[in-house]
Amino acid sequence: MTVRVLFAGRDAGWDEWAPHLRDAFAEAGLDVAMVPVSRDHDPAAFDWMIHSPKGPVEDFAPYTGLKGVLSLWAGVERVEGNPTLTVPLTRMVDDSLVQGMVEWVTGHVLRHHLGMDAHIVNPDRAWDGTAPPLAPDRRVAVLGLGALGAPCATTLAGLGFDVTGWTRKARSLDGVRCLHGPEARDDALAEAEIVVLLMPHTSATQDMVDEAFLAAMAPGAVLLNPARGALVVEDDLLDALDRGHLSHATLDTHRVEPLPPDHPFWSHPRVTVTPHVASHTRPGVASKVIAENVRRGEAGEPLLHVVDRSEAMAGR
Amino acid sequence: MTVRVLFAGRDAGWDEWAPHLRDAFAEAGLDVAMVPVSRDHDPAAFDWMIHSPKGPVEDFAPYTGLKGVLSLWAGVERVEGNPTLTVPLTRMVDDSLVQGMVEWVTGHVLRHHLGMDAHIVNPDRAWDGTAPPLAPDRRVAVLGLGALGAPCATTLAGLGFDVTGWTRKARSLDGVRCLHGPEARDDALAEAEIVVLLMPHTSATQDMVDEAFLAAMAPGAVLLNPARGALVVEDDLLDALDRGHLSHATLDTHRVEPLPPDHPFWSHPRVTVTPHVASHTRPGVASKVIAENVRRGEAGEPLLHVVDRSEAMAGR
Repeated sequence: MTVRVLFAGRDAGWDEWAPHLRDAFAEAGLDVAMVPVSRDHDPAAFDWMIHSPKGPVEDFAPYTGLKGVLSLWAGVERVEGNPTLTVPLTRMVDDSLVQGMVEWVTGHVLRHHLGMDAHIVNPDRAWDGTAPPLAPDRRVAVLGLGALGAPCATTLAGLGFDVTGWTRKARSLDGVRCLHGPEARDDALAEAEIVVLLMPHTSATQDMVDEAFLAAMAPGAVLLNPARGALVVEDDLLDALDRGHLSHATLDTHRVEPLPPDHPFWSHPRVTVTPHVASHTRPGVASKVIAENVRRGEAGEPLLHVVDRSEAMAGR
Repeated sequence: MTVRVLFAGRDAGWDEWAPHLRDAFAEAGLDVAMVPVSRDHDPAAFDWMIHSPKGPVEDFAPYTGLKGVLSLWAGVERVEGNPTLTVPLTRMVDDSLVQGMVEWVTGHVLRHHLGMDAHIVNPDRAWDGTAPPLAPDRRVAVLGLGALGAPCATTLAGLGFDVTGWTRKARSLDGVRCLHGPEARDDALAEAEIVVLLMPHTSATQDMVDEAFLAAMAPGAVLLNPARGALVVEDDLLDALDRGHLSHATLDTHRVEPLPPDHPFWSHPRVTVTPHVASHTRPGVASKVIAENVRRGEAGEPLLHVVDRSEAMAGR
């Protein structure tokens, strides 16, 4: 039986994704009829919707035949609270997303740990042969131990870092000291010299890095944000950096992207901007994840990476 | 029976090391009488010599009672070819040396892999959202798979990098494509985007990074040298960098240290100087390695980390 799939992204996305998706459906042994949302279509006629927040679909009500919505994005904050969405929502979790994030986080943790910037830019030709502490003497906190946070924390622990993980609900992870709940958050922050944000963007995490959060961080600590710009109150962060309470912030995600040329982050001596490169969805890999979920759904098996929407709905 | 140990380092070294060594000997259950070389002593009266190339002992002939010479250094190039040394020589291999080297190598490989420098110094506020290749698509060559090279290669492979190891004699290492012998060296170099030198300094490796070596490297490749400055012919390296054949060199070791302020490496836009911080011997850890070897020697067990001096002697 033919499975009917709507691609609800931009036309440019269709051109990029369609060949990869077709290959992946064929590899999964599925007979799929897929159409782009820009083509005339009967909303009630689809079994599955592949969704991008950059596409036009914001009202899911007309799509009455859907068995599920499969997001192309890892971050589903623009979709998960949508009250017209009444079928399961899955997020994109692919190996290349995880791999890219682990590389960015490990690289920038090591950069700050080793004090590389003072060697990369050293106009005074200073030769300070003092060795930095070794990783076991460097405390790193990873906030969020989900599909991205957990492998980052595990990799850092594997390199020898003293890693604390913090999550809202209890979690355990080999080699990582796990704390959870609102009361424990400041304990995780107080001890850490490097803090890595890997929480999803939800109503509960929006603006979480505020004056109180920053005050709970250890003096001289470094903040890494490869998660979402909306987690950080920018003025509060700039204030903590200006006062020298934080020694540096390295930010891959921003409230507005590309970061506007007149944004104070660009010129701040304690800020490094990276252009949202930590974690990229690669269509070849991600299409296989989409196809596997369609295969599972059609076979009556549980879907992978289903979003728990209870908090997003409660938080509206 | 009391074991007689001579500490053949500088007086400043004695002050730093003696307390750690005494603790380590006591922990190993040894009754040791240890004296510094600067004190009056009978050269024939010692069972073991703890040796630093910064100390005064260059003629081992008068030390007729020695069972072995235990170097405080990982690099033994200044000692291994010494014809007056006729007893076993051990090098320093301690966990903190390995840990520090793995951190430096992993950090700088990730720095070049991720193109961090363009983000750390970005006066034009350029936002280039092109994601770098993932580690499996980045070829790294590690030259030397000894006590330092092997864990670096394994760690890089564990992060997903496509790692080739090259050694003079055949070697195998999980997850690393191993090549060996003079003919295979250029194959290892030709494919690598990042080349890490982790060979010891011997007569065979002195000046190994010369015009021919650099010509065998892939255009645009990066060289990391945390091994020994004497492996590199500096003028040949500068020439390859000036021509843009190599895109960067990050050098932790230098022929003269500290690197003189007028050295061209300091101002070269394609060179990063780090001040010999990759791998530091820490007296607390290293003293335990020395004490374990004295214990082994006294118990008639094989020593750890014995230097194979056949090539050094042949190369004289």
